Amino acid sequence: MTVTTPAGFTAAGVACGLKSSGALDLALVVNTGPSDAAAAVFTSNRAQANPIIWSRQAIGDGRARAIVLNSGGANCFTGHPGFQTTHATAEAVAEHLQLGAGEVLVCSTGLIGEQLDRERLLAGVASASDALAPDGGQDAARAIMTTDSVPKTAECRDAAGWAIGGIAKGAGMLAPGLATMLVVITTDADLDSASLDRSLRAATRVTFDRLDSDGCMSTNDQVTLMASGASGVAPDEQDFTAALTEVCMQLALQLQSDAEGASHDIHIRVTGAASDDDAVEVGRSVARNNLFKAAVFGNDPNWGRVLAAIGTTSAEFDPYDVDVTMNGVRVCTAGGPDRPRDEVDLTPRILHLDIDLKVGAHEALILTNDLTHDYVHENSAYSS
Amino acid sequence: MTVTTPAGFTAAGVACGLKSSGALDLALVVNTGPSDAAAAVFTSNRAQANPIIWSRQAIGDGRARAIVLNSGGANCFTGHPGFQTTHATAEAVAEHLQLGAGEVLVCSTGLIGEQLDRERLLAGVASASDALAPDGGQDAARAIMTTDSVPKTAECRDAAGWAIGGIAKGAGMLAPGLATMLVVITTDADLDSASLDRSLRAATRVTFDRLDSDGCMSTNDQVTLMASGASGVAPDEQDFTAALTEVCMQLALQLQSDAEGASHDIHIRVTGAASDDDAVEVGRSVARNNLFKAAVFGNDPNWGRVLAAIGTTSAEFDPYDVDVTMNGVRVCTAGGPDRPRDEVDLTPRILHLDIDLKVGAHEALILTNDLTHDYVHENSAYSS
Repeated sequence: MTVTTPAGFTAAGVACGLKSSGALDLALVVNTGPSDAAAAVFTSNRAQANPIIWSRQAIGDGRARAIVLNSGGANCFTGHPGFQTTHATAEAVAEHLQLGAGEVLVCSTGLIGEQLDRERLLAGVASASDALAPDGGQDAARAIMTTDSVPKTAECRDAAGWAIGGIAKGAGMLAPGLATMLVVITTDADLDSASLDRSLRAATRVTFDRLDSDGCMSTNDQVTLMASGASGVAPDEQDFTAALTEVCMQLALQLQSDAEGASHDIHIRVTGAASDDDAVEVGRSVARNNLFKAAVFGNDPNWGRVLAAIGTTSAEFDPYDVDVTMNGVRVCTAGGPDRPRDEVDLTPRILHLDIDLKVGAHEALILTNDLTHDYVHENSAYSS
Repeated sequence: MTVTTPAGFTAAGVACGLKSSGALDLALVVNTGPSDAAAAVFTSNRAQANPIIWSRQAIGDGRARAIVLNSGGANCFTGHPGFQTTHATAEAVAEHLQLGAGEVLVCSTGLIGEQLDRERLLAGVASASDALAPDGGQDAARAIMTTDSVPKTAECRDAAGWAIGGIAKGAGMLAPGLATMLVVITTDADLDSASLDRSLRAATRVTFDRLDSDGCMSTNDQVTLMASGASGVAPDEQDFTAALTEVCMQLALQLQSDAEGASHDIHIRVTGAASDDDAVEVGRSVARNNLFKAAVFGNDPNWGRVLAAIGTTSAEFDPYDVDVTMNGVRVCTAGGPDRPRDEVDLTPRILHLDIDLKVGAHEALILTNDLTHDYVHENSAYSS
C-alpha cells in the first residue's frame, strides 16, 4: 500500500551516504504512463528551499514523469551552489530515464543551511534508477524518513478499478501551510492535471493543512500527486477527491502519531463556529499554546489554558459562553467550571478536546501533539 | 527600591492561606496622596479575568487610591461568583481604608478556572490593611509571586526630587499584549492621569510588550501606575516617560531572567527593517519558534530555524538577503552559510541574536527564552 499500489508506477529507495547512519536516503518514483498529469502544493513559507524553487517551476505545465526525494539535508539557504545541486539532480534523473529535466520534480529534507554532497547524491540517482521496481514503494517510503520512527503509507482502491497510493515523511516542523512534510501520492486514475490540482487542494486543505504539531512551518514542504491513467478509468472528480482526502487523512494521522517526542495525539474539534475560518483559527490557537500542550503531557486537564488561548483569536465568540469537553467530560460550561477536572482521564494516547463556541454551525478538526521532554530533547540535539 | 520608594505610598504583603505553602499571597499598595491620579494598561486577551473586568471600570476616571493583588488563584472563568469575590475584595479594602470601592483596583494571579476562597481573601484584606507601612513594598513584591523564584523590584530617582518605584511578578504565560504579568509602579511626581496614561503606554510598548517568553497570552495582565504628587514636583512629561521606560525595562529584564525553566535569555535585535511593525513581527516569529528555542537550550546555533521562522512573516525582506549573527559570530550572510556554526559559544546565559533584514532603518528588541525540559516540567505539573 504505497506509491506503487496503483498501476503505472515504479519506485526505488537506496542509500547513497547522505545519512551518516548508512540508512536509505534517496527515493525515486516514476510514472510510466500512459498519462503524465500531475499536481503539487508547496509550503507557504516565504523562505523556500532550492528543491521547492525547482519543483514549482517544473510542475508549472501540470506534467511530471518522476520525482526524486532525498533525506539527509534540506538544501535550503545554501545559495547558488545549492540550487545547482538541485538542478544537477533533476538532470541526472532525466538522463538515466531519458526524460527532460523539466519532467522531474525534486524534494529534500533534513538540516537547513548545509550543502548536500552532490557527488553522493548523483551516485544515488544512478543506483535508484537501476533499482526501480513495480514494488519499490516501501523502500521509497523508508528512504524519505528523517526523525520518523516508522515509514508512512496509505492506499485506497475503488471498485471501478482505480487506486490511490501514498507515502509521507514528517515528524517535526509540522505546521500548516502545509503541515511540514514530504508526500508523494500516485493514482492510476485517468484525470487531467486541472482536476488533479483541484482534488489535491481540496484534500490537503482539510487534512495536512489541519495538522499543526509544533507550530513551526517548514521551508521544504511538498505534496505531489501523479496520475498514470494506467487503469483506463476516468473517475468522477468528486469521488476521486473523496478517496484522495481519505488517503491524505490516513497519512496525516500517521504523521501526527509519529510526531517528535509526542506522548499524546490531540484531536481538537471546534464546533458552533460562525465560519470555517473561525473554527480553524480557534483550533490552531489552542494547538500552538505551549502551556496547554505541556499540561496535556502532564495528564493535566487544564481547560483554563484552552480558554486563554481562544481569547487571543479574532474569532466570533463570547468568552463567557464557551463549552469545553475533554475525553467526554464537560469540564467547562459557559466559560465557568463544570465537572471536576480529576474526572478526566488523560492517560490514553489520544485526547479528544471538544470546544463549542455556540455562535454558529461551522466546525473544524485540528490535529496536534503535546509538548514533552522528548520533544525538547530531540530538537535541542538535532544538528549536533 | 519598590512601590514604597516614592513618597506618599504605603504597602503590605500578608499570608491569608490562598497558597497552600503558607507563603505571602496578598499585597496591598495605597496612595496616601495628595494626588490620586493613576493609569493602567490591561491584557489584550479577549478572555479577561474578573479582576481585569473590575479594574478597567474602576480606572475609567483616571483615579485610584489603592490596589489589592492576590496570588494563589487567577479568578478567571469563575462565573458570577468569581466576579462577586472581586467586588467583595474591593469593598473590603474600601471599608478598611475609608475609601469608595471605585477607588480600589484589583489584580489576581494563579490557576484559571478555580474559585478563590473568599473568606480567606477578605481576612487577608483586613490583616494587610493593618500591616500597611511606608516600607512595606518588599513584602508586597513577595506576596504577588507565583512560580517566580525571586521578587522583582526597580526604582529610578530624579535629581529634581521625584522618584519612581515598581514591583512585578511573572514567570510563565509571558507574551505581549501585555507580557503576562502583574506590575505596580508608583511615583511621587505630580502628573495628571492623562499624562500618566500617555507615559505608561509609551513605556510599556517598548518594554513589557516586547517580552515574549513563551507566546502564551494571559487573562490577568495588568500594569498599574499610581502618582501621589507627594514630591511636589511636576516633571517634564518626556523626562518622566524616559525614567518610567527605564524602570519598566529593569522589571522586564528581571521577568525574562526568571522565566519558568529557562536556561537562556535571548535578546533578539532586528535591524534593517522597513518599519517598526516589521521589526517586531520578525522578532516575535523567532521568539515563538519552538524548534529554534529548543536548539538554543541545546547550545545549538541553528540559524536555519531562524530563517524558517522569518519566512512565516509578512515583513518586507528578501529571504536570500538576510544576515544572522549569534553572540558576535556572523553565521549567515545573505541567506547562506557564513562562519561555521561551531564558532558560536552558546554557553553564556544571554544569547545576542542579531537579524539584519537589510531593507530599511527600523529596528526592535524582542526578549525571549529558550524551551527547556524544566519549562515542560513546570508547566506539565502546575495545577496538579
